[in-house]
Amino acid sequence: MKKLEKRIDELKKFKTSNLYQKDFLLTWEKSEDDLKAIMEVADILKGLREKNVSSKIFDSGLAVSIFRDNSTRTRFSYASACNLLGLEVQDMDEQKSQISHGETVRETAQMISFLTDFIGIRDDMFLGEGNKYMREVGASLDEGFKEGVLPVRPGIVNLQCDMDHPTQSMSDLLHLRNHYGSLEALKGKKIVMSWAYSPSYGKPLSVPQGIIGLMSRFGMDIELAYPEGYELIPEIVDIAKKNSKNSGGSFKVSNSMEESMRNADIVYPKSWAPFKVMQQRTQLLQKADKQGLADLEKQCLAQNANHMDWEYNAKMAVSTKNSDALYMHCLPADISGVSCKHGEVSAEVFEKYRLDTYREAGYKPYIIAAMMLTNRFANPTEVLKAIAKRGATRVNF
Amino acid sequence: MKKLEKRIDELKKFKTSNLYQKDFLLTWEKSEDDLKAIMEVADILKGLREKNVSSKIFDSGLAVSIFRDNSTRTRFSYASACNLLGLEVQDMDEQKSQISHGETVRETAQMISFLTDFIGIRDDMFLGEGNKYMREVGASLDEGFKEGVLPVRPGIVNLQCDMDHPTQSMSDLLHLRNHYGSLEALKGKKIVMSWAYSPSYGKPLSVPQGIIGLMSRFGMDIELAYPEGYELIPEIVDIAKKNSKNSGGSFKVSNSMEESMRNADIVYPKSWAPFKVMQQRTQLLQKADKQGLADLEKQCLAQNANHMDWEYNAKMAVSTKNSDALYMHCLPADISGVSCKHGEVSAEVFEKYRLDTYREAGYKPYIIAAMMLTNRFANPTEVLKAIAKRGATRVNF
Amino acid sequence: MKKLEKRIDELKKFKTSNLYQKDFLLTWEKSEDDLKAIMEVADILKGLREKNVSSKIFDSGLAVSIFRDNSTRTRFSYASACNLLGLEVQDMDEQKSQISHGETVRETAQMISFLTDFIGIRDDMFLGEGNKYMREVGASLDEGFKEGVLPVRPGIVNLQCDMDHPTQSMSDLLHLRNHYGSLEALKGKKIVMSWAYSPSYGKPLSVPQGIIGLMSRFGMDIELAYPEGYELIPEIVDIAKKNSKNSGGSFKVSNSMEESMRNADIVYPKSWAPFKVMQQRTQLLQKADKQGLADLEKQCLAQNANHMDWEYNAKMAVSTKNSDALYMHCLPADISGVSCKHGEVSAEVFEKYRLDTYREAGYKPYIIAAMMLTNRFANPTEVLKAIAKRGATRVNF
Repeated sequence: MKKLEKRIDELKKFKTSNLYQKDFLLTWEKSEDDLKAIMEVADILKGLREKNVSSKIFDSGLAVSIFRDNSTRTRFSYASACNLLGLEVQDMDEQKSQISHGETVRETAQMISFLTDFIGIRDDMFLGEGNKYMREVGASLDEGFKEGVLPVRPGIVNLQCDMDHPTQSMSDLLHLRNHYGSLEALKGKKIVMSWAYSPSYGKPLSVPQGIIGLMSRFGMDIELAYPEGYELIPEIVDIAKKNSKNSGGSFKVSNSMEESMRNADIVYPKSWAPFKVMQQRTQLLQKADKQGLADLEKQCLAQNANHMDWEYNAKMAVSTKNSDALYMHCLPADISGVSCKHGEVSAEVFEKYRLDTYREAGYKPYIIAAMMLTNRFANPTEVLKAIAKRGATRVNF
Repeated sequence: MKKLEKRIDELKKFKTSNLYQKDFLLTWEKSEDDLKAIMEVADILKGLREKNVSSKIFDSGLAVSIFRDNSTRTRFSYASACNLLGLEVQDMDEQKSQISHGETVRETAQMISFLTDFIGIRDDMFLGEGNKYMREVGASLDEGFKEGVLPVRPGIVNLQCDMDHPTQSMSDLLHLRNHYGSLEALKGKKIVMSWAYSPSYGKPLSVPQGIIGLMSRFGMDIELAYPEGYELIPEIVDIAKKNSKNSGGSFKVSNSMEESMRNADIVYPKSWAPFKVMQQRTQLLQKADKQGLADLEKQCLAQNANHMDWEYNAKMAVSTKNSDALYMHCLPADISGVSCKHGEVSAEVFEKYRLDTYREAGYKPYIIAAMMLTNRFANPTEVLKAIAKRGATRVNF
Repeated sequence: MKKLEKRIDELKKFKTSNLYQKDFLLTWEKSEDDLKAIMEVADILKGLREKNVSSKIFDSGLAVSIFRDNSTRTRFSYASACNLLGLEVQDMDEQKSQISHGETVRETAQMISFLTDFIGIRDDMFLGEGNKYMREVGASLDEGFKEGVLPVRPGIVNLQCDMDHPTQSMSDLLHLRNHYGSLEALKGKKIVMSWAYSPSYGKPLSVPQGIIGLMSRFGMDIELAYPEGYELIPEIVDIAKKNSKNSGGSFKVSNSMEESMRNADIVYPKSWAPFKVMQQRTQLLQKADKQGLADLEKQCLAQNANHMDWEYNAKMAVSTKNSDALYMHCLPADISGVSCKHGEVSAEVFEKYRLDTYREAGYKPYIIAAMMLTNRFANPTEVLKAIAKRGATRVNF
């Protein structure tokens, strides 16, 4: 506890005024201090729980979740974070609601918020839509709070959109920070965000975009690798390039998985759909054009099949630093011979780093809780100090 | 807080013995004192929460919800109310249960109630069924409690049935009370409960019935307007007429939206299906006659289309009191040009009163909580006094 | 309370070290002391709640539920148990998750467990699969805890598998213990676990297997009755035989419901599918062979129809002890003329024992809570003593 108390004390060096009562939608809208503070709060909350100290700061209150796409990890992470702080999750299942009656986003946002402290949203299927939807919800909450309809302005946590997946990328970064000892230690480390083959198509772009958008803030050497045609949203690649420049790192694009791996410290091989395909898909989804979607899928899978050699395996790993680059994945990975015939990663390599990927995932509940805590309280240091001092136990007896 | 404490103190003037351990199924089964007490408790709970005072009175316990029809507002209101008082919602999803195995209502009621304090039920699709079902559940709970199967008799809250929608109408009334300053101020006010055009059909009768059944208790001048053929359940119209007489108000039926609006203080334009259509629909639903239902829908939509001029808009509003009657709606409204092409209300008029409708909706969580609190505790004044005195905070730090 | 405190004090006579941090998967893996301790803890928790004493021992934490088959009773029992102890249920709905993406059980188990204290699992559809799945989850949790991925090793509660239904059979046994006054009083009592006719097919074997596997531990005379061809899993019948021998009871198989009933103290007439049919069905389900499943169902229903005389009714009951054997059922029962045309039990006989079956069901939440409490705490006596001493109330005011 002494060590944790010291860390809480040192938290005040970060300016977090930018987080207070602001939604967490994109990491590139936040300052380095914001990001560092969230990671540190997350790590402290993790430490407190491991020492059986309760971090409950809400006696009651709802935290709404809106999942417009499937989720296991993030759903449980959000539920865990809310429960940790004392909020009860109420899922907004659009199929059991009256949304289909043509209700406006503006209205729904208010209707679910009368006694709500947070809204977590996943909306990652439609390019140009997910992040926009979150901002539309936010604007309505602003109005409701300003006009006295809502007693508090619920904070929004982006649980994955078309642009970014900040709870994932922040967990990934905290994992790296703790793996290498400090954020300083990441400077000059080479991380490869590589496309990888998958027998499925249409995977969101938010993870690779989130990774290059965030890791470029901390002086790392980023290499983004993909087969020609598998571009990300150009504006976000530009953000990553600018970040790299500002942070003293570098940013490079490559069209060969094998070459990109040379001397890599960290590798993140993961499938995604080409940006242009996602654009087409968005239009087809909006028109509910089933035949068009089926045709597009067929065509894309055929295109993917040209790149089955983009599997991360021992042959790829051998050219990384000491043949032992840290493997990362947001999970679930498509593991060749385990979860599919041919996939993103060989069974052998995945197995070597499997527990690392679990540890990586284990930060997410605390990252979400830290986003909530810093959104809600102007002075997180004081809050954590009070929690530690109070010393209430999570499991009694 | 001083002001709230004074209001708590004054609560004792209402006799609430009629609420204690009684289900809340229909407003017309409750006395005026009952209704006033519930509104006052709701308003006090709202005030306490806005002052960050926790109203948690249950340390644990379940509150079951049974939604036999879609819901957003009421689902979140119920969840909010339960959470406010310290109960955890457990939804009874009939599709994931064994109900389809031919289980009796009598049995299910017991099986979900061993550690349950409340059951909230929405069952509004079948005329003659919803309210009956709630009473069947209630009778089983009575037996279970009497015979020592259940440690407490869970209270039932009607979250909308075929006859009434009491959590809605009570929220509406509390909104009016607070808008005009007092219940006294409502005497002599003219409220128009009007049918309005909608491109959908089969909307329940419970809202208009609930409104005329409740507002008629407080000396208002009710005008019920609908195109010929769009009658409500006759027995409930009779109740409203009798109420109006007893309370010194008046009750009138009109077949012209335009004429009904003259000099109105408050307007509630909302679509519903004709009583006789709902009877036919109930029979078809019970027989699962898909073709019959499709035919009925087609025929009804054609009938509705004859009354597209029943849209509440600037032209209608101009003849209301000061051209500014308070617009009400249970939401979501069918807004012309926003959520549908032609609907219940013009975009312009809706926008003018939009925030008012949100405020109206915002009372529902507290109305439900007040129904629970007065059901469970013989002396709500003492409970609220203790809550205020204890002064536990909802959000700590 | 004095009486409860005395019972808590006497709890220490049971050795429960075998329960501590062990999953509860099969009753026949547990010692008599284990089983007695769980029943006693369950009964004490029930007593405490009836005296408005809160048994909350977790301030926060999740309890995951995984239902791979429908459930009402067990779902609510699990939710009640978790809420009683202070944990929040988070349901793992495999349809809303990414399980279908080929995620491994090993991985899912970790992903839902970062802040989780218990996982309750129902998996009863596939012979040879359900219990195996639970052990696979358990092995992954062991690894995760050992490797520092998980801060605690979540305990697993078997909420029904292909082999056993321990939360059901333990509730049934506690019901018998309290009905007859003691476990001692069950020695020499004759219990008939009989197949009964049902118009549905494919009901799991876990209840009859659970009953004979557990009741045989306490010196009862077991008679297992079924029409030829309706065998249970042979290995489990062998376990029951061995148990009977060791406990000084007896075990007999009969192919006549009528004869089996002679002089019975307790009867448990319930439909199940023949072991061999369940084997075929498992294979067909795994191949998703719809036609094969439909054919098998047809053939089985025809076979069932040969045994419509296996209905427990007044004619059957008359040959039981004093014509008044205690009727038991896990519910819902197929009641002739009530929930189906011809079923497992006549309406008249069911009605006579209906409230008894509700009482029987009412133990399940407490049995589950007791399984959790003894899994999590090395010394349940001390925990219950502290709860009683603390005397926190569940409902305040």
